[in-house]
Amino acid sequence: MTKAVVDSVRAGDLRAAARLMRDLDDGVPAAQRSLRQLYKHTGRSFILGITGAPGAGKSTLVDAIVGEFRAIGKTVGVVAIDPTSPYSGGAILGDRIRMQRHYLDDGVFIKSLATRGHLGGLSRSTIDVVNVMDAMGKDVVIIETVGVGQDEVEIVKVAHTNLVVVVPGLGDDIQAIKAGILEIADIFVVNKADREGADRTRRDLETMVSLNDYEEGEWVPPVMPTEAVSGKGVGELVEMIDSHREHVFIDDNLELFRREKATVELFEMLKTRLLEEAVGDLERHGLLDGLISDIAARRKDPYSIVEKLVNHSFAANLIG
Amino acid sequence: MTKAVVDSVRAGDLRAAARLMRDLDDGVPAAQRSLRQLYKHTGRSFILGITGAPGAGKSTLVDAIVGEFRAIGKTVGVVAIDPTSPYSGGAILGDRIRMQRHYLDDGVFIKSLATRGHLGGLSRSTIDVVNVMDAMGKDVVIIETVGVGQDEVEIVKVAHTNLVVVVPGLGDDIQAIKAGILEIADIFVVNKADREGADRTRRDLETMVSLNDYEEGEWVPPVMPTEAVSGKGVGELVEMIDSHREHVFIDDNLELFRREKATVELFEMLKTRLLEEAVGDLERHGLLDGLISDIAARRKDPYSIVEKLVNHSFAANLIG
Repeated sequence: MTKAVVDSVRAGDLRAAARLMRDLDDGVPAAQRSLRQLYKHTGRSFILGITGAPGAGKSTLVDAIVGEFRAIGKTVGVVAIDPTSPYSGGAILGDRIRMQRHYLDDGVFIKSLATRGHLGGLSRSTIDVVNVMDAMGKDVVIIETVGVGQDEVEIVKVAHTNLVVVVPGLGDDIQAIKAGILEIADIFVVNKADREGADRTRRDLETMVSLNDYEEGEWVPPVMPTEAVSGKGVGELVEMIDSHREHVFIDDNLELFRREKATVELFEMLKTRLLEEAVGDLERHGLLDGLISDIAARRKDPYSIVEKLVNHSFAANLIG
Repeated sequence: MTKAVVDSVRAGDLRAAARLMRDLDDGVPAAQRSLRQLYKHTGRSFILGITGAPGAGKSTLVDAIVGEFRAIGKTVGVVAIDPTSPYSGGAILGDRIRMQRHYLDDGVFIKSLATRGHLGGLSRSTIDVVNVMDAMGKDVVIIETVGVGQDEVEIVKVAHTNLVVVVPGLGDDIQAIKAGILEIADIFVVNKADREGADRTRRDLETMVSLNDYEEGEWVPPVMPTEAVSGKGVGELVEMIDSHREHVFIDDNLELFRREKATVELFEMLKTRLLEEAVGDLERHGLLDGLISDIAARRKDPYSIVEKLVNHSFAANLIG
C-alpha cells in the first residue's frame, strides 16, 4: 500500500497527496512509512520562504507571486503557517478565501497549518508538507509564515530564498527588528509601497544592509518595493528571486544549504518526537498527572525530574 | 557553595542573582543545582506577560508600567525576550537604552534574552530567569516578548496575566491575528491611542471579544487605550491588571493556573534538554556529521533516523 501511495504522490496526484497529509496529521503509521520512502525523491523543488508580521499583506503578495510562476508554467505548492491559530477549521476555510484566484487551478496546491497542541510540532508538520510537495514534483514550494519566533526562524532555513515583507510606517521602530530580519532576509520587500513613508522605510532598510560587511561574492540583500494588490513591482521581485536562486545553486553554496537544511530537519524532528515519546511514555505509565501535581505544589522541582528523564545513551540506538 | 548562592538569591542579592543567571547561560553544573534548590521558593511573584509586534511600543509601555509598580513600592523583575536577535551583546546594551529611567533603581532587575543557537532553548532560559527573579522575592516579574511564534505562545502561559499590545492602523488586517491573540490575551492594550484609527481598532477588538461565548464568572478581556510615551491611560491599565490578578487568585483558577504553568515548565525543559542530550551524544560518538551528510545526499532519510533515536523507555528512568 505504501508503494501505491508513494507512486501516486510522485506522479503529482493531488488527492493522494492531500490524503497523505491528512494521515500524517492524524499520526497514521502507514503515512510515516510513505514519507520515509518519499524522502529520497525530494530536493528538486525551489523552496521560497515569505515572512512578515500580520497586516504586511503577505497573503496578497503570495497570491501575486504564485500568479507570476503560473504564467511561466511552473507548478506551485503553498504551505501557510499560522502558529497562533488553534483552529484548524479556520485554516481550511482560510485556504479558500486566501487564494480564490488559484483555488481551482490544479497547478497550485495549498495547505494551511494551524493546529497545535501542548507538544508543538508545527515545525515538524511544515517539514513534512514541504517534503510531500517536493516529492510531488512541484517546481516551487512557498512557505508563508507570520512568525518572528524561535521556531519560525529555524523553519525558514529549509528555504533556498527568504523574503522578509515589511510595510511603511514602522519609522524608528525598524531598529527593533534589525538583528532578526538581517539574519533571515535574502530579499527585503517593502509592500504597500504607495503608502506614506515607503521611501523612508526603503532607505532605512538599505542603510541597515549597507552597515554590514559582505565578502566578495556574498549575496547582499536588495530592497524591493511592491504593491501586491495591483501587482506593481511583483514581476521585478520574481526576477530578483530568480537571481538569488541562481546564487544559491552555485556548487559550494548549494552544498552548504543542503547540509543546513538536513540539520534543521533532523533537529526539528528530533525535538518534536523526543518530547512526544517522553510524554507519551509517562502517560502510559500513569506518571504524568502526579508529576505535574508535585511540581505545581513545589513538592518536586521540574529540573531534577527532567535530568532523570534525559539520562540515556541515544547514540547506542543507532550503533547497537 | 550551592547553599550560599541560594541564600543570597533568596535575600534578593542582585549580584548573586546576576552571576547565577550568567552561570546558567554558560551551563555551569553548580548553577543548575542552585536552581533546583531555589524552585521550592518560587510561586510568590505576580507574573505579567506583555506581547506585541515590533513597533507596538512595548518597551515604553513596560517602562511606564514598571514606574507605576515602583510608585507603590513593589519590586519588579523584567525579562525581555527577543528570539530573533543573534546578538546577546546587543541585548545587554539594549537593557541600558531600554529602561534608562529604572536602570539605576535597585528595585528593578532587568534581563534580556537573545542568544540562541541551533538547539533553541530560549523558552527554557526564560523559565529559568523568571524562577530566579521569583525566588529573589520580586513582587512582580514582567515577561516582554515580540513573538507570535509557537514557542512564545507556550511561554506566556507561565504568566498570571497577559497583555496583548496592538497599534492603530491594522484596519481589516485585525482579522489576521484574531484567533491567536484571543487565545492569550487577558487584556488588550491599544497603544499610541492618539493615532488615527485608534477608535476603530478599539471597536474592532471589542467586537471580536463580543463574538465569543463567555461563561458566568469567566474573565472577558477588556480593551484599554494607552499613550505609553506620555503615560496616559497607564494608571487605569495597571488597575485593570490588578483586577485580573484578583480573578486569577480565586482558588480554583489559581490551582488550574499552577498546573498549567507546571506543565509548560516540564514540557519546555524536556524539549530543550532531550534535544541537547541527543545531539550531544551523537557528537560525542562522532556520528552527527555523517548523519547530516547522509540526509543531505538523500542516502538516508531523517524520519527513519529519528524513529531509531527516540525508541526508549523514558518512564523507566523515574521508576527504576
